[in-house]
Amino acid sequence: MPQSKTSRFSARASKESIESGLVFQPKFDAEGLIPAIVTDAVTGEVLMFAWMNAESLALTIEKGVGHFWSRSRGSLWKKGEESGNLLRVAELRTDCDQDVVWLRVTVEGGGVACHTGQRSCFYRSVPLGPAPHNDLVKSPSRPRPGR
Amino acid sequence: MPQSKTSRFSARASKESIESGLVFQPKFDAEGLIPAIVTDAVTGEVLMFAWMNAESLALTIEKGVGHFWSRSRGSLWKKGEESGNLLRVAELRTDCDQDVVWLRVTVEGGGVACHTGQRSCFYRSVPLGPAPHNDLVKSPSRPRPGR
Repeated sequence: MPQSKTSRFSARASKESIESGLVFQPKFDAEGLIPAIVTDAVTGEVLMFAWMNAESLALTIEKGVGHFWSRSRGSLWKKGEESGNLLRVAELRTDCDQDVVWLRVTVEGGGVACHTGQRSCFYRSVPLGPAPHNDLVKSPSRPRPGR
Repeated sequence: MPQSKTSRFSARASKESIESGLVFQPKFDAEGLIPAIVTDAVTGEVLMFAWMNAESLALTIEKGVGHFWSRSRGSLWKKGEESGNLLRVAELRTDCDQDVVWLRVTVEGGGVACHTGQRSCFYRSVPLGPAPHNDLVKSPSRPRPGR
């Protein structure tokens, strides 16, 4: 189980408390995971999407560096630990239902967030219009100011 | 089952084709759903996070308007159909694994994406630092240029 046995976070309360209150009470799914959206703190570009368990969320908040749960490896994953492309967190937000988190980050090292070597994982777009929807087109990352 | 019986999309091929190719072959999870990140096309702010089944993804691409699968209601959900706050899609991207989509949108009507009346669902942030991680702080939406 990816969820740690003792939750580090507040228990879920009423819908009103979750939506309007100022108590952090993140919701983990049946696998003990919460989705995490990662964007560039300057450009707003979505860099990657991953999952966190309670331990990786707590580490991310405590250290200010992105930690996740690797579903393929079944283990804690400190992003960039080997490559040097650590995610330095400028801000961590949650949504109305507190079942998603959003990290605004600066990518350290080479500035590369994707394992393919691209800055962002989202390097292809789907042309809009009638079916069939079979094709992708390359959609280059936006350059960061000053780089 | 939220997944339509006949898939409208290409079957998944090799890892190389998925990561480097130009064939759109989205991956739906065991529930027939794919995560969808929605950002403001101008500011880059994350507005909401939701799920799509094959039908809602196909409708989004075809119409250029955000459609989702409501897990709570168990039905197709054309976002803003009642409120007028439709999501007009400027660009739709997918990630390296093709198991997430990212919509860059303009919110029509009142410009409100969240059911609470906020522009973005992500109106609170989690202060970084040592445990306990119990508190949230209000984190107002960034104004859109020209508004």
